[in-house]
Formats: sequence, C-alpha cells, structure tokens
Amino acid sequence: MIPKNIVLPLDEMPRQWYNILADIKMNPPLGPDGNPVSPEMLQPVFPMNLIEQEVSPERWIDIPEPVLDVLRIWRPSPLVRAYAIEKALDTPARIYYKNEGVSPPGSHKPNTAVPQAYYNKVFGIERLTTETGAGQWGSALSFACQQFGIECKVFMVRVSFDQKPYRKAMMETWGGKCVASPSNETNAGREVLAQFPDTPGSLGIAISEAVEAAVSDTSGKTRYSLGSVLNHVILHQSIIGLEAKKQMAMVDEYPDIVIGCAGGGSNFAGLAFPFVYDKINGKEVEIYPVEPAACPTLTKAPFSYDHGDNSGYTPLLPMHSLGHNFVPPPIHAGGLRYHGMAPTVSQVVDEGMATPKAVTQTQALESGILWARTEGIIPAPETTHALAQVIIEAKQAKEEGKEKVILANFSGHGLLDLGSYEKYLAGELTDAVMTDEEVAKAGEILSQYPKPAHLKSR
Amino acid sequence: MIPKNIVLPLDEMPRQWYNILADIKMNPPLGPDGNPVSPEMLQPVFPMNLIEQEVSPERWIDIPEPVLDVLRIWRPSPLVRAYAIEKALDTPARIYYKNEGVSPPGSHKPNTAVPQAYYNKVFGIERLTTETGAGQWGSALSFACQQFGIECKVFMVRVSFDQKPYRKAMMETWGGKCVASPSNETNAGREVLAQFPDTPGSLGIAISEAVEAAVSDTSGKTRYSLGSVLNHVILHQSIIGLEAKKQMAMVDEYPDIVIGCAGGGSNFAGLAFPFVYDKINGKEVEIYPVEPAACPTLTKAPFSYDHGDNSGYTPLLPMHSLGHNFVPPPIHAGGLRYHGMAPTVSQVVDEGMATPKAVTQTQALESGILWARTEGIIPAPETTHALAQVIIEAKQAKEEGKEKVILANFSGHGLLDLGSYEKYLAGELTDAVMTDEEVAKAGEILSQYPKPAHLKSR
Repeated sequence: MIPKNIVLPLDEMPRQWYNILADIKMNPPLGPDGNPVSPEMLQPVFPMNLIEQEVSPERWIDIPEPVLDVLRIWRPSPLVRAYAIEKALDTPARIYYKNEGVSPPGSHKPNTAVPQAYYNKVFGIERLTTETGAGQWGSALSFACQQFGIECKVFMVRVSFDQKPYRKAMMETWGGKCVASPSNETNAGREVLAQFPDTPGSLGIAISEAVEAAVSDTSGKTRYSLGSVLNHVILHQSIIGLEAKKQMAMVDEYPDIVIGCAGGGSNFAGLAFPFVYDKINGKEVEIYPVEPAACPTLTKAPFSYDHGDNSGYTPLLPMHSLGHNFVPPPIHAGGLRYHGMAPTVSQVVDEGMATPKAVTQTQALESGILWARTEGIIPAPETTHALAQVIIEAKQAKEEGKEKVILANFSGHGLLDLGSYEKYLAGELTDAVMTDEEVAKAGEILSQYPKPAHLKSR
Repeated sequence: MIPKNIVLPLDEMPRQWYNILADIKMNPPLGPDGNPVSPEMLQPVFPMNLIEQEVSPERWIDIPEPVLDVLRIWRPSPLVRAYAIEKALDTPARIYYKNEGVSPPGSHKPNTAVPQAYYNKVFGIERLTTETGAGQWGSALSFACQQFGIECKVFMVRVSFDQKPYRKAMMETWGGKCVASPSNETNAGREVLAQFPDTPGSLGIAISEAVEAAVSDTSGKTRYSLGSVLNHVILHQSIIGLEAKKQMAMVDEYPDIVIGCAGGGSNFAGLAFPFVYDKINGKEVEIYPVEPAACPTLTKAPFSYDHGDNSGYTPLLPMHSLGHNFVPPPIHAGGLRYHGMAPTVSQVVDEGMATPKAVTQTQALESGILWARTEGIIPAPETTHALAQVIIEAKQAKEEGKEKVILANFSGHGLLDLGSYEKYLAGELTDAVMTDEEVAKAGEILSQYPKPAHLKSR
C-alpha cells in the first residue's frame, strides 16, 4: 500500500532548478519605445545576477548551497496521498497533493524569496521592497531577508491588510516592515488615494508603490522583489514539480492531471512546468491552472502586451491580462487578485499545453471545508481553488469509472485566513463572476499596446 | 554532517505507547469520602476503555490501527537540528527540537485527541465536551472528533477566546462548537459569572463547565475529554519521546538535557517520560519542565491533594497545585494557565527525577522572537517557555565550554498567537511573577485536603 506521506530522502532533494525558457519560445518584454528591453534597463529594479537568471536560456541552473541550507528548514516538502478525500468522494481517482504549507511562512512563496534574498545579498543590496496580496509573499520575503540579514519593506493590499491583521505581526516577527497599500509613502499610492480614497487596493497598485520605493532610493542599495509572474520566480518554484516527480516515481505513479491555482502563476508553474517539459517530450498529461471566476485572466482575458503594475512602471509583458488598471473585487483569495498572468504561463496556455479553469470563491471555500474535514489540513483560500478543481475531476473520474491519477499543488495552509472560513460558515461570502462584457470593458486599455505573436514551441 | 531534518521512516513509527505507571509508584486519586476512587465512579465522565487505560499497569500499550491511520496525517513528526540558533548563540551545545507544530491543529494535542475520540466512538459515545485554554486543545479535539464522526463542544477560557478569535473559526471549520467560559450554559459558569462578571476565566472553571455539560446529558451518549493532566493523556503523548529517541539514535546522539514547557504537563511528559524510563534504568539525563513564573505550580506550589477543576467536580488528585480556585493572571501562554500539574509529572518531580524551572513571559517571547529569526519557525507562546530554557542551557554550555546535547519539545507553532508577538514587539507585554507569599495565600484552600505520601520508585 502507498503510504499517506511520501517522504523524499534529503539527499534526493533537487540541486538544480528547471528553466522552461530552454523549451518554449517567448515574445520579449518591451520598453516604453516599443523595443525589447535590455537587461541593463532592469538594473535599477533588480540585481544583475537575478536579471541574468531572468533571461537565461539554460535548462538546468544550479541552486546555490546557502540557498539549499535555508530551503532544508522545510524541504523536501511532503507529497501526500489524499486517501481521506478519495474515500469521502467514493472516487476511483488516486489523488496526491504536494504540501507547500509546511514552510515557516506557510506557503510555496519562500521557494523564491530565499534565493531572491540570497542573490540580492551577494550583489551587495541591503534592503528589498515588495508588494503582497494575501500576505503570503510579504511574510515569505520577510522570513528570507531575515535569514540573510537584509531589510524588507512590504506594501500590503489594503483589503487583505484589513482582513488579515496577523500577517503584519508575522512579517514584524521576522523583522520586516509592512504598510497598507495604497499608502501615502509613494507618488503612485498618493495618486490612487486622491482619486479613490476608499479603494480596496490591488496587487497592481502595490507593485507600483514597491517599485517606486526601490528605484527612488538614491543610495543604490535598495532593490525590488516580485513574488510571482517573472521568469526567475517561476524558475525557483520548479523545485516543487521536480520533487513531486521524484516522489510520484517512488510509488510508481505518474499523474494524468496536474492542477494548481493561478494568480500570478508561480505556484501553478512551479508544480506544472516540469510536467510541461515531459509533455513537450511526448508524455500525455493534462495540466490545469485554476483561477477565480472573479478575476478570470486565463479563461476570459486576451493574450496581450500589458504592464505588470497599475502605474505602468514595468516593461510591457506578453501575457493574459484584464488591463493593468483593473481592480479585482475584494475576494478572500487575495493572492489571486492580479490583473495579469506570468508570461511563461500565458505562453504555455496560448500554445494549448495547459487548459485554464475558473471556479467561484464559495465553490472554492466549500471544497476547502471538505478538505479540512477529511484530510485534516486547512487550505489557504487561494489553494481551495485548486482543490475545487481536484474534486470536480475526482467526481468526473467516478462518473467515467476511470482510475485517474490527480496531482495538485497544496500551495499554502489557511491558518492566517480563518476569517474567510468564518465568513463562509456564517453564509456571508458572496460571489463575483466576471462576464464577457465586463472583461471586454476592463481590457479596453489594452488596445494601445501591440499584440504578442502566437508562437509554437513544438 | 547531521541533517537539519531528521526524518523517521514511516515503518519506524511507534506501534505502542509507553506507560510510566509501570515504572513509578503513585498515590491514588481520592473520592469525596477520602477513599481511593474506583474505575466505576468515573463512568459518567469517561468511557470505560479509557478508564482502563487510566489505571493500567502495563508498560507498553498497543496503538489501535485506526488511530495510527489518522496520526499518519502528520506523524512521525520531524526532529530538527537547530543549527541556526546554535550559530546565533555561538554555543558548543548541539540543540535538537521535536516539531509537534506540524499537525493540522498545530500542536502536540491531537496525539491524544485522536485516540480519545476513537475510544469514545468505539464505546458508542456520540458527543464530547471539553475545555480549552489557548485553543490548541479545543482545535485538536474538534479535528479528532470530525475524523471519527462525533460531535465536539468546547468551553474556551474567556481571555484566550477574546485574544484569539481565529481559534473559534478553526474549531468550526472542523465542525466543532465553541463558547467562551465562564458561560451561561452551566451552573458552574453561572455561579462564577454572578460573583466575578469580568473574570478572564481559567482552565479550572472551563473544566468544571465541560464536566457538568457531559454528566448532565441524560442520554448517556456524552462524555468529557481532558487534554492534559490524566494518565491516559500522558500515555498517548509518549509517542513524541519514543519517536525522538529513535531519531536521536539515527544520528548517534543521546540528550544530556530534555526540556519541555509544562502547563498541565502533557507535552513535557510526552517527550520526557521515555527518557525518565532510561533514567530509572541507570542512564544519566537531566530533565527540565519549564513553567511560567506567573503560574509556578512545580517550582513553588506544594505537592498536595487537590481537585483538577474550579468547582471540585473531579476526584482529589495528588499533584503540585496552587489551589483549585486560583485564577492565574491573563498571560499570553493560555495553555500554561493551570493551577495544578499532571500527577505523574508531580510524582516524577517529587522524586527528584525531573527539575522544574520557571521563566517570565517576556523572557519567553524574547526567546520566541530569536527562534523565529534564526530557525525560521514561529513558536506558540507556551512553547517559547521551553525555548527560553534551551537558550539558558546553551549559553551555560558556552560558558562551561561543554558540548552538551539539548533536546526540546517544540510543542506547537504560534501562527494563531501572533497577537502576542504584536504586543511584545510593541512593548505592551508585562510580567507577573508570583511571590512565595502569594503562592502560600493561594494555597490556603489546600489545608483541608490530605497530603500525598512521598513515594520512592527506585
């Protein structure tokens, strides 16, 4: 019998990240003049060693030893056979989840926060700024900066800042600083507040604030750090899928379906891209990113060039986007409230190598409750989107009488999100489903930008 | 080099609990008439299968397979080498901690909640009542009851109920019900409220309420469940120490000092008693239970007979006690706010086989911050008491230039206690250290009870 917890021996922990840029063709990011940006143009924002990773064509990139030392605090993370939920659903499907909730900040985010803090430290940077939605990323970067002795300043989306006060305490426990965004500390923040004093905020606005705070520090010792979307972030997250593949192999399994929730795309890609690599090389596997119906970037929004932030500070990225000034409704899965999507994830979806899905937040939290009451573990609201799709697929497998193997990313636990469960259990959560018309209207701003080419990698 | 995470293979997980009653002599619990209570007298409160465990003289007791199935959700728990804190303290000591925070409710408590729910279910019980301090135990029993399909009702000490609102949401996510104690639902609660309407509550009061709610259900299908103190609870927790011993052996280590925080005594005893067994059999090992200086049961209070609860519903237990009507100050480590101490722990201390220590809450939380900023993981306020002592011992080892091996129980994470860290970081936490005079005054009520004999087990 396959054990419930499939533990990867420590010496089997991956020593290299997988870089999907070696295996897909990408449209380049564009500068304000419409020409591809050069690595040098990104220097005020990121340290050069990370910029080099951002554009590297190497398939395998070594993980530095000091990074491995910190990752070993919780990695390899467990792969868990979800026997209890299989039984509850009476499904012939075999369900596995990769538990990224075991990290100190409680999510997959430190997989990239740790190397980002390390590379900045090595480059001589003394302070990082960033944004955070639900708080998972801000916590992770505070934790990582503390490990390498650099400062951390976090702009936290207002609605999540108010919903999740413990996140600030967590960041401060690790020595980080945290303010609600939009704030009065930046031009970007002040401009939004002047126009919309009661805005719930958005990841796009918070990114603008964090980038501005980094580039406006004249000492040259501050840089910005992003928790998703970019190629080097997705690279660092590949350790999830690389471990999961080894763990599946330990019990002679290979997934028919790979599932992850998708906001900026990093936890989804972290699990899925090592399997996309297999797919490119002829393996049959279905791959589903799952997003909230209230912010349907992949399922409804166009593949376009757009800015990664609200104020247009970032280069134009080739991605599925609802428009960079779109403010998603204040759903509880704050980490999924992003107008865009990682260019690599967008590219993989555009090529048909992954098939996006969308679920509502009540559907998601209902699945989270079932998960908590069977498997025991309480998922983050973001994670419940992936689990909702797992349950849909498991029921489908039952209807079809098929022994499907489902692998999902359990991107984080929900212990700092229990307010969302409280609201759900009290019947106070409502759903916002974006219509095609609303998507079209939100995306009007995109008409001014070029369209990326439809490239074929295979 | 010894790995940071020492992972016990699943097939090495203990299949039997260790029962210290086989190795020590105990004063019996006494009824209202001053005579030893019989197992039958406990029947309205506990199911007979657990009462049998409570009085069993067997050294090794099999863990039922359905209990192992649930424990495997998170067990074996990791033993972690605390390299980062060793480095921060520049100590020659080698520090290990057993991480019980990896369970779904986040503490060691489900180690006994799961078998208690199981034995009640097997006995035909449909509903359990209990008390909780910080909320760790109430969460654990809600989780365990959900796993076996029985109802759970939790009386939560008022001060913690107000400090930690997410704990209620967590219990409800697992289908449990939770009210603040003292409540208006029981005679015991109503009497306290009439006299002290603004009381912060105490574990003693909450126990009275939960016992009353169980025994007053005339259907006979409700029983009470206690999260610490009793012999069968301590028995179930022995899995911690049994695993830790195997894990230490995997890296050819044996502790010089074993440390756990002590409120009712169960996490301390869970780790320590398998080492007390070695000590009884001639091994040299120091064993330190660590309590808050604001509630100094073991370090200052007498070894006496006393009730386990505020209203005197329970038998008289032979234990260190501050007096059953003592209401400890509202310190943040709610799980350590108990007037008494497990009889087995009291006996082991009375015989000199363990040496109690006390630390203040600011000293404890300061240690918790250091732990979070080095090891990464954020401890529960209760747990920080043990870690404070670890740090004292590690500094002592440095002064003496000795390579001491320290093993501590990391009884739970602090992710639902971040409000305590927030207060500490804002400089708002104050200390209450009980003086000898205050202890003597609190204990005046004990003069009416017999004194237990000073027994020698060796």
